[in-house]
Amino acid sequence: MPVYRAPVRDTQFILNDVLGVQSRNDLPSYAEMSSDTVEAILQEGAKLAEQTLFPVNYSGDREGCERLPDASVRVPQGFKEAYDQYCAGGWVGLAAPEKFGGQGLPYLLHAAVGEYMSSANMALMMYPGLTQGAIAAIITHGTDEQKQTYLPKMVEGRWSGTMNLTEPHCGTDLGLLRTKAVPQVDGSYKITGSKIFISAGEHGMTDNIIHLVLARIEGAPEGNKGISLFIVPKFNLDANGEAGTRNGVACGSIEEKMGIHGNSTCVMNYDEANGFLIGGENKGLRAMFTMMNEARLGVALQGLSIAETAYQNAADYARERLQGRALTGAAYPDKKADPIIVHPDIRRSLLTIRAFNEAGRALLLSTALQSDIAHYSSDEAVRELADDHVGLLTPVLKGVLTDKGFDHAVMAQQVFGGHGYIEENGMSQYVRDARITMIYEGANGIQALDLVGRKLPANGGRALMAYFKEIGDFCEENRADEALSFYTKHLKKGLNDLQTASMWLMQNAMAKPDNAGSASTDYMHLFGLVAFGYMWAKMVKAAQAKLNAGDGDKAYYETKLVTARFYMERIMPETQLRLARIQTGADTLMTLPEDAF
Amino acid sequence: MPVYRAPVRDTQFILNDVLGVQSRNDLPSYAEMSSDTVEAILQEGAKLAEQTLFPVNYSGDREGCERLPDASVRVPQGFKEAYDQYCAGGWVGLAAPEKFGGQGLPYLLHAAVGEYMSSANMALMMYPGLTQGAIAAIITHGTDEQKQTYLPKMVEGRWSGTMNLTEPHCGTDLGLLRTKAVPQVDGSYKITGSKIFISAGEHGMTDNIIHLVLARIEGAPEGNKGISLFIVPKFNLDANGEAGTRNGVACGSIEEKMGIHGNSTCVMNYDEANGFLIGGENKGLRAMFTMMNEARLGVALQGLSIAETAYQNAADYARERLQGRALTGAAYPDKKADPIIVHPDIRRSLLTIRAFNEAGRALLLSTALQSDIAHYSSDEAVRELADDHVGLLTPVLKGVLTDKGFDHAVMAQQVFGGHGYIEENGMSQYVRDARITMIYEGANGIQALDLVGRKLPANGGRALMAYFKEIGDFCEENRADEALSFYTKHLKKGLNDLQTASMWLMQNAMAKPDNAGSASTDYMHLFGLVAFGYMWAKMVKAAQAKLNAGDGDKAYYETKLVTARFYMERIMPETQLRLARIQTGADTLMTLPEDAF
Repeated sequence: MPVYRAPVRDTQFILNDVLGVQSRNDLPSYAEMSSDTVEAILQEGAKLAEQTLFPVNYSGDREGCERLPDASVRVPQGFKEAYDQYCAGGWVGLAAPEKFGGQGLPYLLHAAVGEYMSSANMALMMYPGLTQGAIAAIITHGTDEQKQTYLPKMVEGRWSGTMNLTEPHCGTDLGLLRTKAVPQVDGSYKITGSKIFISAGEHGMTDNIIHLVLARIEGAPEGNKGISLFIVPKFNLDANGEAGTRNGVACGSIEEKMGIHGNSTCVMNYDEANGFLIGGENKGLRAMFTMMNEARLGVALQGLSIAETAYQNAADYARERLQGRALTGAAYPDKKADPIIVHPDIRRSLLTIRAFNEAGRALLLSTALQSDIAHYSSDEAVRELADDHVGLLTPVLKGVLTDKGFDHAVMAQQVFGGHGYIEENGMSQYVRDARITMIYEGANGIQALDLVGRKLPANGGRALMAYFKEIGDFCEENRADEALSFYTKHLKKGLNDLQTASMWLMQNAMAKPDNAGSASTDYMHLFGLVAFGYMWAKMVKAAQAKLNAGDGDKAYYETKLVTARFYMERIMPETQLRLARIQTGADTLMTLPEDAF
Repeated sequence: MPVYRAPVRDTQFILNDVLGVQSRNDLPSYAEMSSDTVEAILQEGAKLAEQTLFPVNYSGDREGCERLPDASVRVPQGFKEAYDQYCAGGWVGLAAPEKFGGQGLPYLLHAAVGEYMSSANMALMMYPGLTQGAIAAIITHGTDEQKQTYLPKMVEGRWSGTMNLTEPHCGTDLGLLRTKAVPQVDGSYKITGSKIFISAGEHGMTDNIIHLVLARIEGAPEGNKGISLFIVPKFNLDANGEAGTRNGVACGSIEEKMGIHGNSTCVMNYDEANGFLIGGENKGLRAMFTMMNEARLGVALQGLSIAETAYQNAADYARERLQGRALTGAAYPDKKADPIIVHPDIRRSLLTIRAFNEAGRALLLSTALQSDIAHYSSDEAVRELADDHVGLLTPVLKGVLTDKGFDHAVMAQQVFGGHGYIEENGMSQYVRDARITMIYEGANGIQALDLVGRKLPANGGRALMAYFKEIGDFCEENRADEALSFYTKHLKKGLNDLQTASMWLMQNAMAKPDNAGSASTDYMHLFGLVAFGYMWAKMVKAAQAKLNAGDGDKAYYETKLVTARFYMERIMPETQLRLARIQTGADTLMTLPEDAF
């Protein structure tokens, strides 16, 4: 059976020593973020994750969800109890505004603790996870009345939320959607249509489910321009604003999926359901993107979360599994065999996973900090810079952390040999669960296109230039520091490749958009390699400062330096391969007729 | 629901035009291999695969196997009928000697058709697949009496075979095994112990199951030196040599696995079962390797098989799924949206899979030809050269084709977006099935170690040097050919990287074995990149010759040239990355203490 230990020590290092959250007094919600407070919250989250969510993760996968004949859905045993404890701890509303019952704490902390929660039980965490996106949409686009009606109960966790976008014939291309909304005299709408792949679409864990549904108002323009967003509660609200009669929405079936069996992924059928417009007529896609951007960072976090749990289990197994001898001769001659961790190839696997996890955690939390700055800084120029940063890094984090999260779950499973392939040891679940993160909230190919097609050229490349300057400046400032020069040298090389690739795109993709498409996935990963490398350089700097100051936790900091070295030696050189691929352009790809494939 | 079409055209091109099997008159079994005969056999195999095996593939995954209370095993519906047809067609014994009832055809053809069979239904094909390994062991190590007793019925498919190696505490390190064999007065043994992960361990599809079981004879030396191999039939043989009373072996349980649900992977319990020594006392590992080498090529084939089916389904989906518009503007303005195959990133995925599949097929078949030469050539020097080749390429084929087979099943699944994640479309099965190929018959880390630790240094690097010379000569001979120079230039660069890496290993790994371990996986993939690139160069040469000769199938050959160009531009540059990683050595990997992981 798998284990999970929340990496509180590592989160603390990133928050306190790398990001320096204690010095962010410019942000109101950061005022009380002493290192003690940070630790207390992290420990509390770790406890819930380890002791409450994790124990029903494996069983949740085995049991799965079931649609009963009355169209209700049975979730795995123990899920409701665990969810209730999650709500009781105030975790749904950790970063929500106090006026709606939230704790008003930084999103940064929500993300930090969110990693533990998803590591412990990704399928279960999707129920409140989808609520977060719905809360964000209502906060940003809802009327005051809608906010008062829905937010307090959603922030409490008593009601949950969903996102209803996909239909059988349209996922990425929402302009094709057919669900229709017919205006009623009272200003509401009747919603009719069918939606698929709706995570947490139906269950009995909350008193009500607030579906946010994309639909087309009768007579609206075709394509993306005619899409609106609606609030469709599972239960109509009674006079007191509580769940009353059943609305015209029901789960038609549950999808049989490769993983996340604990989450009820539903086909949702809307049959003249009462819906309430949010965000204005035909402004649905804009409102949807509010949910989506929030959700994309959440999915990036899931990629990291699974890779972290998978790593821990692989490391434990490698220490325990006795098989064969070290290549250099018996390391434990008194034992029947050596643990497989004596093998360089096993260590290579473990360090690869770890190098991405620790840099991924740093980049996620650093982006979460920028998100708080973008929302709460009093300085408009600072907000703009931070918003640029979040926009630029979101597709990178989503695409790279989920591609790598899956690859690394597979790599961790491989450490187990045949014992990883049987369901009994839980490694299969991590692989199957991680697989969806590469797909939902915009498949990773779409993330890559978002990066090269939208984020890169936006505002004349302003976000990109600022980011390159930040990394370049870091290398320059630390060039003379001998303890850092090994790392900054590799980082600089990677940055050069990324800049060359960016220049190539600017010169070759404007006139010929297929060159952007042919470069997109490699560009996204090239970007990730550099962004993660930058995090490693910053972590080395922070760790070195601690070592120089004689901090007691020497082994922890030295492990950081070794892992950073591994990243620079073994991982960073991939930037050259990615650049070479990008520069080949689209011609070869576009040559073949469709029927030659 | 997925589709499958056996790639007969491509197999023909490789056999007839790249490998030139018609000119191999030096091999007895090749005498009748006219291109018509080859086509007839391939078409017959294709028909069985497409019409008989494939229709029960998806359902076999959904149904799985079940151990019934009487310890018998129920296999999925239709499996026995399909297996019977496979046997009736003489496919089990296609390459088996005629004196045991086989058809005495080349192993090459067995491999060619075997790809189709595993593409169509990998889980089902494991039943006769394991029989192949058992047949090979009995042919090589059995007494005449054992051969007469077991082979004809196994070649017919009326009896099947298994390999019983793994125990709960030992997989890779068989020296630890505990199953014991107690000598009896009649020369037989009583076998007692428990084996796990036994593919096709128990089922009712055949009249008898011939288990080949590794065990330790009472009093034998510890470790690898004290292991013997035994024949343990499920049913003791009666006076007529037919299945009689039940032997002391039974299925204890069926493993719940991530995939290959249609195969009964069993815990097998031996309780004083009657066993018959094969291959001599304490010579078990040698005999086991006879099965294993055969099996490793079979697993490599499975990697290719799954990637091929996954590719076909992804290409179909990409042609059919209408979503969004081409980056260059609507390609099909009369349709609601364009098929996603207009996108460079989708084509990049498809071409990546295809480039590996077609080169993988060529390399597998080319190695199968060498295997036939190694067995049947009348010239000892030729046999030795061919045997070197097979030994060298086996771990490369197994490791690379299964790593890539899995990656590419995932890549094909990704083309489907969310529709790939639900079980309904069958793509999840390909990913789950492909996953085991990286693990069984020696996990890929073990293949990599076999390559650098055994195959590379064997006989002073004789096999390696011959292989490098072959590729170098090819580049040299075709240097002046303008139609080939683009390809040979890239191939030469890759070969240089491989030679540099090999030199580095010779200089750095002898004194410090951890340098071999830290390089092994990257070296195996570097080797694969070059070996596949060599196949592409050879295929280009053959295709170009056909085009020059005005062959009618122009589109087929031109697609080959484009796919080859893609491979050289986009895939081959990875050799530099692999070399860079290899050259970093083991130091960083070996620095951390075990508890720092």
